[in-house]
Amino acid sequence: MSSNLGIPTRESNYADWYNELVVKADLADYSPVRGCMIIPPHGFALWENMQRALDDMIKETGHQNAYFPLLIPKSFFDKEADHVEGFAKECAVVTHHRLTKSADGKSLIPDPEAELEEPLIIRPTSETIIWNTYKKWIQSYRDLPILVNQWANVMRWELRTRLFLRTAEFLWQEGHTAHTTYEEADAEALTILHDVYSKFAEEWMAVPVFRGIKTKSETFAGASHSYCIEAMTQDLRAIQAGTSHHLGQNFAKAFDVQYQSAEGKLEYVYATSWGVSTRLIGTLIMAHSDDKGFVCPPKLAPIQVVFVPMGKAEGLEQTTAVAKDLAAQLKAKGIRVKVDDRAKESPGFKAKHWEMRGVCMRVDVGGRELEAGELGVSRRDEDEKQMVTTGSVVDHVTAQLAAMQGDLFTKALAFREANIHRIDTWDAFAKQFDGEGGGGFVLAHWDGTAETEEKIRELTKASIRCIPLNHEKPEDGQPGKCVLTGAPSQQRVVFAKAY
Amino acid sequence: MSSNLGIPTRESNYADWYNELVVKADLADYSPVRGCMIIPPHGFALWENMQRALDDMIKETGHQNAYFPLLIPKSFFDKEADHVEGFAKECAVVTHHRLTKSADGKSLIPDPEAELEEPLIIRPTSETIIWNTYKKWIQSYRDLPILVNQWANVMRWELRTRLFLRTAEFLWQEGHTAHTTYEEADAEALTILHDVYSKFAEEWMAVPVFRGIKTKSETFAGASHSYCIEAMTQDLRAIQAGTSHHLGQNFAKAFDVQYQSAEGKLEYVYATSWGVSTRLIGTLIMAHSDDKGFVCPPKLAPIQVVFVPMGKAEGLEQTTAVAKDLAAQLKAKGIRVKVDDRAKESPGFKAKHWEMRGVCMRVDVGGRELEAGELGVSRRDEDEKQMVTTGSVVDHVTAQLAAMQGDLFTKALAFREANIHRIDTWDAFAKQFDGEGGGGFVLAHWDGTAETEEKIRELTKASIRCIPLNHEKPEDGQPGKCVLTGAPSQQRVVFAKAY
Repeated sequence: MSSNLGIPTRESNYADWYNELVVKADLADYSPVRGCMIIPPHGFALWENMQRALDDMIKETGHQNAYFPLLIPKSFFDKEADHVEGFAKECAVVTHHRLTKSADGKSLIPDPEAELEEPLIIRPTSETIIWNTYKKWIQSYRDLPILVNQWANVMRWELRTRLFLRTAEFLWQEGHTAHTTYEEADAEALTILHDVYSKFAEEWMAVPVFRGIKTKSETFAGASHSYCIEAMTQDLRAIQAGTSHHLGQNFAKAFDVQYQSAEGKLEYVYATSWGVSTRLIGTLIMAHSDDKGFVCPPKLAPIQVVFVPMGKAEGLEQTTAVAKDLAAQLKAKGIRVKVDDRAKESPGFKAKHWEMRGVCMRVDVGGRELEAGELGVSRRDEDEKQMVTTGSVVDHVTAQLAAMQGDLFTKALAFREANIHRIDTWDAFAKQFDGEGGGGFVLAHWDGTAETEEKIRELTKASIRCIPLNHEKPEDGQPGKCVLTGAPSQQRVVFAKAY
Repeated sequence: MSSNLGIPTRESNYADWYNELVVKADLADYSPVRGCMIIPPHGFALWENMQRALDDMIKETGHQNAYFPLLIPKSFFDKEADHVEGFAKECAVVTHHRLTKSADGKSLIPDPEAELEEPLIIRPTSETIIWNTYKKWIQSYRDLPILVNQWANVMRWELRTRLFLRTAEFLWQEGHTAHTTYEEADAEALTILHDVYSKFAEEWMAVPVFRGIKTKSETFAGASHSYCIEAMTQDLRAIQAGTSHHLGQNFAKAFDVQYQSAEGKLEYVYATSWGVSTRLIGTLIMAHSDDKGFVCPPKLAPIQVVFVPMGKAEGLEQTTAVAKDLAAQLKAKGIRVKVDDRAKESPGFKAKHWEMRGVCMRVDVGGRELEAGELGVSRRDEDEKQMVTTGSVVDHVTAQLAAMQGDLFTKALAFREANIHRIDTWDAFAKQFDGEGGGGFVLAHWDGTAETEEKIRELTKASIRCIPLNHEKPEDGQPGKCVLTGAPSQQRVVFAKAY
């Protein structure tokens, strides 16, 4: 059931389709270190484009980047009880600072004489080391707010890993801010949710998202409450694409960070933290890709247009010259182009090669077509090749890249809308999530208790992805009765099986 | 003997001057983790500017970025004998993947049941994990060259650390390339040395450098030979600012990376690796800064111009409005500006605050001066404030930023030239390096043996920084007699005490 390029179709095996696509599209690969991935140049160029756009948005909203140590003293973890509970079970522990020859001289072992007095943890997230630092940075209300972001690698020793979606090491940004009031911290967490994460997902990734609040059981370890964005995958599951946490005064109290207010009183600081990671790449792949490989929104694509010159001998020289000239014109307009002039590969091979890797448009420069004054232009998300007069290729490609960005979003939104179900009876709810499939997003009423939430998860494997802040329809925000217990509910919440 | 801002003068205590400047200029700070630094926003903005410029140059020379795992299996280290010798003694070793409660329940300990089968090393550099990957990527000559770079954090458990100059964790880029021939790999290593590192040091950092080859004793662990750039500090020592290594076939053989040549033969691949790190920031600080604090070349400065509006009440409103208007005009020209409108700080405090942090130009917007149609403009590297008509401030500042970039380089070059000594007798040589001071760069003849090199190091603490490729004077490249042994020498080499 695999396609001619050797990846399974989505229908035959969605999980294998994803796993094989990631590797064959040169987006990521397995490494010899359990759960850690290699990101080859093509995948990393995608991440760089995402980083650049996000970094600009993070800076536009008033934040600055900084860098904090990779290693965190074990004792710091003990300071915030929920936080340590959340991370101690899956962390990489550094215990020695030297290797030495084993007794038989044949291999290297951690040198027993170089054991650390206190073990160090590779950061799974940096709240503790950062709040230990903020204690030094914050004395007066005039030192606030602190609006800092960090781009870093982090490590969580997950049991089951999947490329991009859940890896032991991943790359991310983590924002850590400090404020004088609860309200200011909440506004900050919501600014990130709406003006950075949600905007980035929809306008750059072309992925529509629900913005919402996590239930208590899904709240970040150490937070007062967590906001999130949730996207839908093509196999009808939910994927959490970003989180923004209001940390209350939890970390300020754990690390004793107080400031002197304008009135001269000592007060604890309020905090937020927020992050998105290389998991966004997994989200992106799942949103748009097809059985031929990766489909990437033009704004983020490492290569937006590829030219394939055809022919032999003099004919090939001519088509290559035309391809290079057109490519140069597009490059001058800021478009990321490539001319695939590999001598030993066929045009058919090249077409499939770039389809797999998510190049948005392909221009075939054929000798006969060129003589007729036309070139064949294909858009990655459309089946038909269009014939375009040579002189208008640059304008055509430019316009189609913009159109594709919008079309991908429209298509993803339509797909999501077709797979949102408003369900009010338990039988229908259970049936919707029956079997191994995803089941889409179910907007249902919930009585607000952790017991009901857990019961529903046990019965259906569906969990509450968020209590939405933005409603598809106004009536979704109206009161009703819990789909399981019949008890009163304030609004519909989003149920789904989740990645 | 400390200046009025509380940092020692360079003359009174150069080491303390550096250490205190780094912290007080908000460039870096100590962390609770031994040898690991915190880079606050101001210092990180500087690093981002350096990264951006370097990254552009690395890409312009045909390289792509990628990412490889933070952790390296211990067994990989065993594969290249020199390499393991160079790094095993100073590496952070991960031995457990979980913390658990201690027997008394009071603290966390590495869970004995979660000990790793094979310890993992936090990368001190990535040759081993990358060459293990290249084995997969390389089959045919058509897969070559591979031109890959990685931006990453690395860890070397150094005994004595200093902010930026030598830290346990540091940020860097590491390039790793693979080639079919020895000559192509050498050309690659030299391209990086000349067209990236040397160019960046001189044109962006305004720091003149010697480009050269390392002697065998200073060659990278696992390399065939190492190229380097060496700069001079104000205390007359050498600082190695970047290295570019020809790895020969050492790693290809250690990891069995062979390719099929065009003739169908199996051949081992040739390799290079090259890196610059946050150590460049230390180099930059040492090159230009003064007793008032950090002096930064405009091309890299996080803030190029600061406006200080003065006066009270309505007067202050007016000067602030003028400052903001001029700042907006400069910003539109791509210049990094700040208006310091803090209400509670005096203009004198602000001037010193920004001097310490290396802002290139300050514009004082005084009420009386404004009425007279003039503003006071100060350049960080000059003592005199200039009065400039308000209408020409934008042009003046723009021109002076360009001039300052050139002037810093000229000044650093003149300083270096004044401290280069061509010495041909042992007495004079020994005297030049006598005492605790630096001694500058001595261009002297050397007989090419490791014994003489080591003997000179023992006697004077001066080492051979490089065998230069670029000569200050052509005659420096002519043969002569070793300054210690009198044996024949091919050219003068650079001796200095080194950081």
